[in-house]
Amino acid sequence: MGYARWLILLVIAAIFVGAPRMAAAEDGYELWLRYPPAEASLAGGYRNAARGLVPGENSPTIQIATTELTRGLTGMIGQAPAPSDTVADGAILYGTPASSPLIAGLGIDLADMGSEGYAILSRRIDGHDVTVITANSDVGVLHGAFEFLRLMQTAQPVRDLDIRSAPKVRLRVLNHWDNLNRTVERGYAGQSIWDWQTLPDFTPVLYSDYARANASVGINGTVLNNVNANAQSLTAPYIAKAAALADLFRPYGIRVYLSARFSSPIEIGGLDTADPLNPQVQAWWKAKADEIYRAIPDFGGFLVKANSEGQPGPQDYHRTHAEGANMLADAVAPHGGVVMWRAFVYSHEQPDDRAKQAFDEFAPLDGQFRDNVIVQVKNGAIDFQPREPFHPLFGAMPQTPLMMEFQITKEYLGFNTHLAYLGPLYEETLQSDTYQRGRGSTVARVVNGALFGDTLTGMAGVANIGSDRNWSGSHFDQANWYVFGRMAWNPETRARPVAEEWLQRTFSNDPAFVGPVTEMMMGSREAVVDYMTPLGLHHLMDTGHHYGPGPWVDDLARPEWNPTYYHQADAGGIGFDRTATGSNAVAQYAAPVAARFADLATVPEQDLLWFHHVPWDYRMKSGRDLWDELVLTYDRGVASVAAMRQTWASVEPQIDAQRFAEVSTFLAIQEREAKWWRDASLAYFQSISNRPLPEGVTPPPEPLEYYKGLTFPYAPGNGA
Amino acid sequence: MGYARWLILLVIAAIFVGAPRMAAAEDGYELWLRYPPAEASLAGGYRNAARGLVPGENSPTIQIATTELTRGLTGMIGQAPAPSDTVADGAILYGTPASSPLIAGLGIDLADMGSEGYAILSRRIDGHDVTVITANSDVGVLHGAFEFLRLMQTAQPVRDLDIRSAPKVRLRVLNHWDNLNRTVERGYAGQSIWDWQTLPDFTPVLYSDYARANASVGINGTVLNNVNANAQSLTAPYIAKAAALADLFRPYGIRVYLSARFSSPIEIGGLDTADPLNPQVQAWWKAKADEIYRAIPDFGGFLVKANSEGQPGPQDYHRTHAEGANMLADAVAPHGGVVMWRAFVYSHEQPDDRAKQAFDEFAPLDGQFRDNVIVQVKNGAIDFQPREPFHPLFGAMPQTPLMMEFQITKEYLGFNTHLAYLGPLYEETLQSDTYQRGRGSTVARVVNGALFGDTLTGMAGVANIGSDRNWSGSHFDQANWYVFGRMAWNPETRARPVAEEWLQRTFSNDPAFVGPVTEMMMGSREAVVDYMTPLGLHHLMDTGHHYGPGPWVDDLARPEWNPTYYHQADAGGIGFDRTATGSNAVAQYAAPVAARFADLATVPEQDLLWFHHVPWDYRMKSGRDLWDELVLTYDRGVASVAAMRQTWASVEPQIDAQRFAEVSTFLAIQEREAKWWRDASLAYFQSISNRPLPEGVTPPPEPLEYYKGLTFPYAPGNGA
Repeated sequence: MGYARWLILLVIAAIFVGAPRMAAAEDGYELWLRYPPAEASLAGGYRNAARGLVPGENSPTIQIATTELTRGLTGMIGQAPAPSDTVADGAILYGTPASSPLIAGLGIDLADMGSEGYAILSRRIDGHDVTVITANSDVGVLHGAFEFLRLMQTAQPVRDLDIRSAPKVRLRVLNHWDNLNRTVERGYAGQSIWDWQTLPDFTPVLYSDYARANASVGINGTVLNNVNANAQSLTAPYIAKAAALADLFRPYGIRVYLSARFSSPIEIGGLDTADPLNPQVQAWWKAKADEIYRAIPDFGGFLVKANSEGQPGPQDYHRTHAEGANMLADAVAPHGGVVMWRAFVYSHEQPDDRAKQAFDEFAPLDGQFRDNVIVQVKNGAIDFQPREPFHPLFGAMPQTPLMMEFQITKEYLGFNTHLAYLGPLYEETLQSDTYQRGRGSTVARVVNGALFGDTLTGMAGVANIGSDRNWSGSHFDQANWYVFGRMAWNPETRARPVAEEWLQRTFSNDPAFVGPVTEMMMGSREAVVDYMTPLGLHHLMDTGHHYGPGPWVDDLARPEWNPTYYHQADAGGIGFDRTATGSNAVAQYAAPVAARFADLATVPEQDLLWFHHVPWDYRMKSGRDLWDELVLTYDRGVASVAAMRQTWASVEPQIDAQRFAEVSTFLAIQEREAKWWRDASLAYFQSISNRPLPEGVTPPPEPLEYYKGLTFPYAPGNGA
Repeated sequence: MGYARWLILLVIAAIFVGAPRMAAAEDGYELWLRYPPAEASLAGGYRNAARGLVPGENSPTIQIATTELTRGLTGMIGQAPAPSDTVADGAILYGTPASSPLIAGLGIDLADMGSEGYAILSRRIDGHDVTVITANSDVGVLHGAFEFLRLMQTAQPVRDLDIRSAPKVRLRVLNHWDNLNRTVERGYAGQSIWDWQTLPDFTPVLYSDYARANASVGINGTVLNNVNANAQSLTAPYIAKAAALADLFRPYGIRVYLSARFSSPIEIGGLDTADPLNPQVQAWWKAKADEIYRAIPDFGGFLVKANSEGQPGPQDYHRTHAEGANMLADAVAPHGGVVMWRAFVYSHEQPDDRAKQAFDEFAPLDGQFRDNVIVQVKNGAIDFQPREPFHPLFGAMPQTPLMMEFQITKEYLGFNTHLAYLGPLYEETLQSDTYQRGRGSTVARVVNGALFGDTLTGMAGVANIGSDRNWSGSHFDQANWYVFGRMAWNPETRARPVAEEWLQRTFSNDPAFVGPVTEMMMGSREAVVDYMTPLGLHHLMDTGHHYGPGPWVDDLARPEWNPTYYHQADAGGIGFDRTATGSNAVAQYAAPVAARFADLATVPEQDLLWFHHVPWDYRMKSGRDLWDELVLTYDRGVASVAAMRQTWASVEPQIDAQRFAEVSTFLAIQEREAKWWRDASLAYFQSISNRPLPEGVTPPPEPLEYYKGLTFPYAPGNGA
C-alpha cells in the first residue's frame, strides 16, 4: 500500500475515532457536548443499538438532529451510523408521526408531549430491534436526539428504553445583559458574543454552536440585549441584525426576544411622550411590533425593566406597571408575542425597606395584566445575593403568571474565578414552600403553573455567556448554564444529579472523578455564602463592581445602596429587623411562612440576620454566641475552599491537563479571595462588635484601613 | 486484535497524521503555524531530512524549539523525529556552539548573526547528512527552527541548505493600544487579549501562543498597554501582572515594555508636579524604574505619547520633548532600558498645517536626546491614512535614532471586514527615498540604521490582535501582523513574496490558490485608497469612529479634526496646498524631494491632492480632467473589490469551507461599503464641484443628506 493510500486510510480512521489532537486541547469550547469514545465494555452494545439512522422527512431541524447524532455516535462508538430509509437491526428512527410513515405506523401516544417534548422508545419492527425518537414537532425530535446521546455520554443503557419528557415551563429563556458596544453588564466571560458590527451579514459558527448548546438543555428563547435597554435596538438596522440571529436559531427551536426601552417612542420615534395611555404612543408600539414581526415572524416578545434604577417607565406618566405592560402586550398580541415585565423595582423616593418594594408595587396589580403578560420576579427580594429567602411575590399573585428570574452569571458570587455551582441555590428557591395554597405550594409549582393553573409560564436566566473560548469564563461556570436549562425544563429537577451528569458529559465518567467532584460542586455555593455573607447577611459587596468586600460602605447617595443599610451592625448587635418591630417585610409572606421567619425560635439560622437584628451574644443552636458563630462561619468558608482545592488536586490523573490547570489556578485565586473576604469582614465587624476572636481563629493580617483602601476600578462586568 | 487495541492504534495514528477534525474546523487560531501533511512528492525527502532531533543543552527556549519542531514535523511528514544525542542520517542538530559540543565542533562562523540571528546549514558529520540550526543564543536557534519549518510549509527543498539571517532592526515591537478595562482603542478583533483581572495568577495557553506567533516572525518586544496611558499600569499590582507576562514571553525572546503616562508622579506618586527637571520627579521615576526592574529584570523600557491629543507631557512645564524623554531615559539607563518617545504630536493651540507640526517640534531637538532614547515616527505626517507620503522626519534627524511606527490594525482602512494587505503600504514607505544623504537615502536605511550608523534601531506596529478566535478579527488581517514582523526583521523585505509565503503557510501551497490570491492581496490596499481617499485625499473619515465617509464634516471644535480642512474643496477645485503658496510643508523634505512634490509636473498623481490645490478641470496624465479622474478612481476602487470577490469565489475548491465562507462574507460587506464610500463621496464632492458625472458612471442612489444622516454610535474601536 502506497504512502498516500496509507495516509488517506489513517485520515479516515482518525475521523471515525475522534481527533485526539482536539482532545488534547481541551479548551472548554465543546461544553457538555463532547463525545469521546465510550468505555470498551459499553461500546459494543452501543454500536449494536446505533447501526443506522432513519430520519423522518428532512427539514432544517431534522438535519441538525442528523448532524448531531452522526457527530455524537461517531465520537462515542467509532462508527458513523449509515443513513437509511429502511429498518434494520440497530436502526434509530427519528422524526414526527407526520414526517415518518414508519413512526406513524407505531401509533405512539404523544398527547402529553406538547410541542417540544419527546419520547425515546425501544421497539421491534419487522423482527428488528430499533430505537424510536419521536415527538409532535421536529424540535421535540431534536431534544430527543440530544437526550439519546446523553444516555451514552453518561454510560447508561440504551436498550429497553421508554423515556418520555416534556417541558413543564413554556418560556425557558436566557437574558443577555449585553450592550450594543459589546460590553456585558455583570459579564465575566469576555465581551458579548453578539458582534453587532458584522451582523446581519456575518453569522459565525459560534452563533450556531450557541443555539446548539441551548437546544441541548432545552432552552427555547433568548433575549439578546440588556434589560437596561438602548432604544437603538429597536431601529431598523438592529431589527435586521436580530432577524439574522432569529433565522439561525429557529431550527434549534429558539426564539429571539428583545429588551425594550420604555421611552423608545421619544428616543427613536420622534414623539414627545411615552405615556402608555397616549394613542400615538400605542400606535407607535403597534407599528414597531408589526415591523419586528415582518422581519422575525416568530419573534418572542419584549422584556422590560421599567421604573427601576433610573430606567424610564409608566410611572413617569403616573401610570401603573400594568398599564405600561398592557400597552406593549396589545402591540405584540396579534402576533402571538408576550411581554415579560420585570418586578425588580425600587423607587428613588421610597424610604421603606427595599426588600418590600417589589411586592408592595406589584401585588396590588394582580389581575390587571393582559393574558400575554408574565411578570418576571427575581428569586429573592434584594438582588441575586449568595443566599436570599424566596421572593414573597411567588404565590402572592394568583391571577398573574409569574416567571422566575435566576442569575446564571455570578455578579455577587465571585465572578468567574470562584467556583460556585448554583444548582443548590436554584433548587433551594424552587423547593421553598410559599404556603399560599397551603403546604406544598412551592415556588416550583408557581413557576410551572401548577399552583394556579397558569398556561403562560417561564423561567429566565441572566446569561453567563461571553466571547471567552470556554463560553462562561471558567469551566465550572458552564455547569450553571446547564443546570439552569435543566431546571427551566422541569423546576422539580434536583441539583445533585444534574451536577453528576454535567461532570460526566463535560469531563469524565470515571466514578473516582465524578464522586468527589460532585461533592465539591454541591458544597461550593454554601462555601461562598460562608465566606461572603453568612447567617443571612447580604449585600456587603463593595460599590459598583460587586467584587470583594465592602461592609463598611456607608457614604453612597441612597441608603439602600450602602452595605451598612443591610447589616445594621452596631455595638449592640447585627442584622436587619424585618419583623413587626422593624420593616415587617415578613408580613409579605403567607402566614405560616411569616410566622416561621418572624420567630427567633423557628427562623432558619441561615436566614437569621436577613430577618432579625440580634445581639452579638445571641445564643445560636450550636451553643456559641452569634459573634463567635459568625467568625467561625467565615472561617469555615475559607476552609471549604481549601478542601475544594484538595479535592481537585486529587483528581488530576482523571482529566486533561489544560482544564485541570485552569481550574487549579482559579481555585487558588478563590482561596486567596475567600481569605480576603473573611479578613476584611472580620476586621470590620470586630471594629463594631469590639469582641475578641474565638480561640484558634487567625486574626486578619492587615488592619481594617488596608481593606478599605483597596480599589478595583477595572474589575469586569460594570458594562461600561 | 481487540477493539481497544485497535482504538489505541488509531488514536496514535491520528496523532501522527494530524487531526483531520481540527483541520475541518479551520477557525484561524493556528495562524500561519499550521502544519498539514506535506505533498506526497516532497514528504519522502522531508522525512529523510528529519529523522531525529539532536538538541543542545536544554533550556526553556530550546524546549520550545523542540516542541515546535516535533509539532511541525509530525504534522507535515507524519513522523515525530526521535530525540537523540548522537548523530545519524537525517538528524537535525539545533543549539548554540556553547550548548552543543557537536555544533561547536563544526566551527561555524556566527560573527554576523548577533544575538538573534541564525544559520541553517546542511552538513556531513561522520558520514551522516544532517541539518544544523545554530546561533549565538537559544532565541536565535528558535528563530532558525521556525525558519526550517517554514521551508517545509512552503514546499521548498531542505537539502544543501546554507541560510543565514540576522535582524536588521534591534527593536521589533508590537504596540497594544489596550486599556485596563480590556477595550482596545482602534481594535477590531474583540477585546484585549490581556485579562488583567486574572493576571498574574492565570496565564492561559493563549498567552504562550501569542508569544509563539510573534517569535515565529521575529518580533521581540511588546508594549502591553495603550499609548494613551493609564498611570495605574505602573502601580505594584499591574507591575506584577506585567511581570507574569514577561516571565511567559522571556523564553520566546520577547521583552515587555509599558506605555508610561507622563503625569504618573502626580497621579500615583503623590507629587504635585511631573516637571522633568524637578529632582523629586526624577527620583520618583528612578525608583519606579528600579521597582519595575526588580519584577522584570529584562524590562524593555517605556513608550511615551506626550503633549499630543490631550496627553500630559513636558511642555506642560515649558520643557522640551527631549527634556522629558531624557528624564525617563536616565531612569531606565542603569538597567539597559530604552525610551521610545513618540513624535506624533500636534498642538491644541498651533494653527499651522497639522502635517508640519511633528517635524517643526522634533527636528530642532536633533542631538539633544540621550543615547537610549529612540523617537518613534508614524509612517506619514498625518495619521495612518490609506496613503501618505513618507514622514519628513525620516532622514531629518541624523543625530537621533528614529523608529518607524506602522499601524497594523486598520483604523482608517475599513476595520476588520475590509481586506487590505498592508505589505505594499509598508514597502512604499520604507522604499521612499528621503534624499537626505543623496539618492538612495531610503526610509528603510534610516530605520535599519544604515544611513546614519545608528545602533539603536526599531520598528513598531500598532497591533491588530484581540480576543477573537482568529486573533485579528479576520483571516486576512493575520497577514498584516505577519508582514509587519517580516519587515521589522529586515526593512528591505518586499511585500509580494511575504504575501505568497503567508498564503502558503496559512491556506495552501496550491499554485492555483496562491497565484490569484497573491494578486488579490497585492492590489487590495490600492483598492481601499481608490474607494476612500484617491489621488492624495486624506482624513475624510467620519468623526470619532473613522468608519465610513464624512468628507462633509466641518463643525468639529478644532479645524484639523474636520475632513473639510484636509480636502479644501470649493467650487474652484480641491486639495491641500502644501507648496510655498500654501503651508509649504514640502519644504520639510530634502530639496530634491521637496521640488518633486512641489511641482505639478513631477508630483506623483497618487499624492496630487495631498500637496496641491488644483482646479476641477486640471488636466491629468490620462487626459481626463481632475473631476472625471476622481470619479473614475472612486469607481475603480469599487470595481477592484468586485474583482476581489470574483477571485475569491474562484478558489473555493482549494481551501476549507469555514474560512472560505467567512472571507466571502467579509468581501461582500467590503463591496457594499466601498460603494457607500464612493456614493457618499461623489454625492458630496458633486455638491461642491457642481460638475456632471462622467458618462457611464452610476450616480449615487441616495441624496447627500442620506449619507450625512447615517450614524454609527457603536462602531468598534473607540476604546470607550
